[in-house]
Amino acid sequence: MTELALLGTGLMGAPMARNLLRAGHAVTVWNRSSGKARALEGDGAVVAEDPAVAVAGKPVVISMLSDGPASAAVQDTVREAFAEGAIWVEMGSIKPSEARDHADALARRGIGYVDAPVSGGTKGAEGATLAIMAGGDADAFAAVRDVLAAMGNPVHVGPVGAGQLAKLANQAIVACTIGAVAEAMLLLERGGANPAAVRAALKGGFADSTILQQHGARMTEGDFVPGGLTKFQIKDLDNVLEEARAHALTLPAVEAVNDRFKHLRDAMDGGDLDHSALFLELKERNGLT
Amino acid sequence: MTELALLGTGLMGAPMARNLLRAGHAVTVWNRSSGKARALEGDGAVVAEDPAVAVAGKPVVISMLSDGPASAAVQDTVREAFAEGAIWVEMGSIKPSEARDHADALARRGIGYVDAPVSGGTKGAEGATLAIMAGGDADAFAAVRDVLAAMGNPVHVGPVGAGQLAKLANQAIVACTIGAVAEAMLLLERGGANPAAVRAALKGGFADSTILQQHGARMTEGDFVPGGLTKFQIKDLDNVLEEARAHALTLPAVEAVNDRFKHLRDAMDGGDLDHSALFLELKERNGLT
Repeated sequence: MTELALLGTGLMGAPMARNLLRAGHAVTVWNRSSGKARALEGDGAVVAEDPAVAVAGKPVVISMLSDGPASAAVQDTVREAFAEGAIWVEMGSIKPSEARDHADALARRGIGYVDAPVSGGTKGAEGATLAIMAGGDADAFAAVRDVLAAMGNPVHVGPVGAGQLAKLANQAIVACTIGAVAEAMLLLERGGANPAAVRAALKGGFADSTILQQHGARMTEGDFVPGGLTKFQIKDLDNVLEEARAHALTLPAVEAVNDRFKHLRDAMDGGDLDHSALFLELKERNGLT
Repeated sequence: MTELALLGTGLMGAPMARNLLRAGHAVTVWNRSSGKARALEGDGAVVAEDPAVAVAGKPVVISMLSDGPASAAVQDTVREAFAEGAIWVEMGSIKPSEARDHADALARRGIGYVDAPVSGGTKGAEGATLAIMAGGDADAFAAVRDVLAAMGNPVHVGPVGAGQLAKLANQAIVACTIGAVAEAMLLLERGGANPAAVRAALKGGFADSTILQQHGARMTEGDFVPGGLTKFQIKDLDNVLEEARAHALTLPAVEAVNDRFKHLRDAMDGGDLDHSALFLELKERNGLT
């Protein structure tokens, strides 16, 4: 049992807090709009009206805030309240460079750092089946592993920032696979095959993926209600390419698909559609609108 | 129990014949080099020295020959031997346009046609777990469904040619996913994360696929012993793009990745490497050779 603070109890943070409580941890929650935090009182959470109060005396602080700047602002707010040797566990999706900067700044105050972004969505958060990609030194990871295991499957993937990098790699693969599935679905449609039957036939094979089955179905059914928003997919891909540039890398498939998502957002007003709407960009490109 | 002929008993055809025999069908086999056919006698196959003898009197003829022209040549050789109302089941990978041409020519002689290419490799052929993508009219598919089920999981995906089109869609997705996984693996490597740990962390999530797990491992371990040859991947992608052109379609991701596979084959002498060696093309492009 660990005493911990969880900052940010939104769509993801709330079910994560519940799973931590269910696993027997003592959880103090804080959220910018306190109503969302108070909804967790019935589950056994202590609610703090101030993040510094939430953090005070806790050996583990979990952040599930909206982005890197929001996390940095709260780190600054609570800097005098940290328990000695506490560990900040960044579970929000922020840039790898931000994770490294935050870790450096916190280390100067004696605070440890693990970045541990997640994949699996609200369903994974509720079912405690999140993929948790953790970056940090081995001791820090070992210290928070049991806490993370209450929310999903933590894997230590490298030093600070590596968790965020893994999340970006995840997003890059998802985006490019959407592009590939779109081309396959359009070829099948125009060639007179039944895309749903083909998706069934390919199940379990080399071409199969959740993207083929779920996003492929969205494409051929024309259902682009999100799901994962195109504008957020672009934000992720911009971060992929920024990180790639920092390592002097060119990633041609990611660049090409990001340009096409931007066309969908900017010229086709598709930023708020599900990212499987890249199918519409492919159709427009082929004069099939 | 169906009396059938199976033409072409190579790496795939031989285990498929064994599974047909095991399921109780009466199988007459023919192969251009007869030694491979005779190896099936111990499993209960009747061996014919001539394809016309194999085909004579059989209501179902399965072709597992090397390509469309090879299949057409044998169809021509045996044309007088077909039983009335027989069905030609093309399980080799040929072009959709060839499948339609063959079906038209055979229909003029009163012979039915189903194209039913497979995915799953020799392992799937041996275990009778092949994905079988079948094109043809509903009656012809219904007539051969039980025979196909002895070799794997047949799914009816549309009219004649649709099975081959589904196989091309499969190959297009595989190629583009290899490109995406290559970029993710290189970003992880250069960014200091452990790619094997990330692959483990992403298992079961939206970015996961057999390509991520198997081809991703080949990339970061530098193991490009085939597996699936780059030169055959290119042949498949050329067929994808030829079929796309026939439907006036532009497929930008397939075009881009095919150009890069061709660079790997032509400028980097990589045609006989596993197709996961697209990772080497990405590294060269990034000055990392």
